[in-house]
Amino acid sequence: MKVKEIMDKDFVSVSPQQGLEEASLKMEKYRKFTTPVVDENMKLIGWITTLDITRGFREGKETIQEIMHNKQSVHHVHENDPARLAVLESAKHKLVSMPVLNDEGIVVGLVRTYDIVENLSQLYEIKVYKIFKAMEQELKGVSWDELMEAAAIITRRRTGHRIKPEEYEQRIRESTFGEAIWATGGLEKFFVGLIAIGELVIARKVARARK
Amino acid sequence: MKVKEIMDKDFVSVSPQQGLEEASLKMEKYRKFTTPVVDENMKLIGWITTLDITRGFREGKETIQEIMHNKQSVHHVHENDPARLAVLESAKHKLVSMPVLNDEGIVVGLVRTYDIVENLSQLYEIKVYKIFKAMEQELKGVSWDELMEAAAIITRRRTGHRIKPEEYEQRIRESTFGEAIWATGGLEKFFVGLIAIGELVIARKVARARK
Repeated sequence: MKVKEIMDKDFVSVSPQQGLEEASLKMEKYRKFTTPVVDENMKLIGWITTLDITRGFREGKETIQEIMHNKQSVHHVHENDPARLAVLESAKHKLVSMPVLNDEGIVVGLVRTYDIVENLSQLYEIKVYKIFKAMEQELKGVSWDELMEAAAIITRRRTGHRIKPEEYEQRIRESTFGEAIWATGGLEKFFVGLIAIGELVIARKVARARK
Repeated sequence: MKVKEIMDKDFVSVSPQQGLEEASLKMEKYRKFTTPVVDENMKLIGWITTLDITRGFREGKETIQEIMHNKQSVHHVHENDPARLAVLESAKHKLVSMPVLNDEGIVVGLVRTYDIVENLSQLYEIKVYKIFKAMEQELKGVSWDELMEAAAIITRRRTGHRIKPEEYEQRIRESTFGEAIWATGGLEKFFVGLIAIGELVIARKVARARK
């Protein structure tokens, strides 16, 4: 996935000559804390935040160019950069948003941190049930009941906790991938649990086939 | 994981009687776009953003209570809420940060969207190699080379693309979980691919054991 697939193309910008009052009205109207400063061709010149505007108001500044951060100090990404770069940059520099440039240095979009959260959190919200359903489909000749039975056995082996297959099924219907990796202690551990269940049902299947 | 495990306990706040100038200086100093308004016991009374402050400056307002959002309109979470609730709320309401309350309505921390991104992105950055290593450890009696060979076979079956086991190993050393799920078309598909590899090595192992 590339940056251009997660960026917001619908953004507001200001010009360096714009007055502080006008810029603040625009940012309030669109509820933006951060905004690129661009020239008439939409090339990135600088960056302002509402913190620069409050300072500008206090200090009696009049135009954007008096308060903006220069292009050199603005964290930005290229539209063809991998999306994960934008994610890492946002977290590292604690950004609210970041301009996305094309080859000509033109601002083509913004990557917003809350969009990243939405994007990333979708993964966490996938039901564990769906992963087991995909597993059932993949493992030809293994029934859903066998899978749940194996899951109950593995759970008991690992945690000492007795659980019935139908209770296990109920649990995975409710729990999400995010909860599961937190509960099991991480992605690798979660996955290892699945493999253990897979190993048990596959061994049983192979044994059956050989009879 | 609970909200209190991901919240930032080190935050600034303002009082309703505070002047706009003083509050803006504080927010600029700590580089905060959003801040809780609290009483002398740190109970949540309201919420302000730098957008409220720019408007307040323009309109000649003097104190925080003239511009703040009342408590009723502030999205907040409880310290014992599941962390995922904070993630979902942040994405849904496009928040920069959100106050965390205890049973007494006291602000005990803030959940910041960029912290969530950092937290979520750690998962995406896990190397696929580590997942295979966990798989190798789990599947007693299956060697690393067998695992890579099976992975190359499954890749060829699924994509038609011929890949040598050592090329496969190189690939998973470089690629992350995030890239892998984007490349395979989603979490379920990624897991299904791993399960298919697991099935192949397990079937071979069982066959060996029966000889």
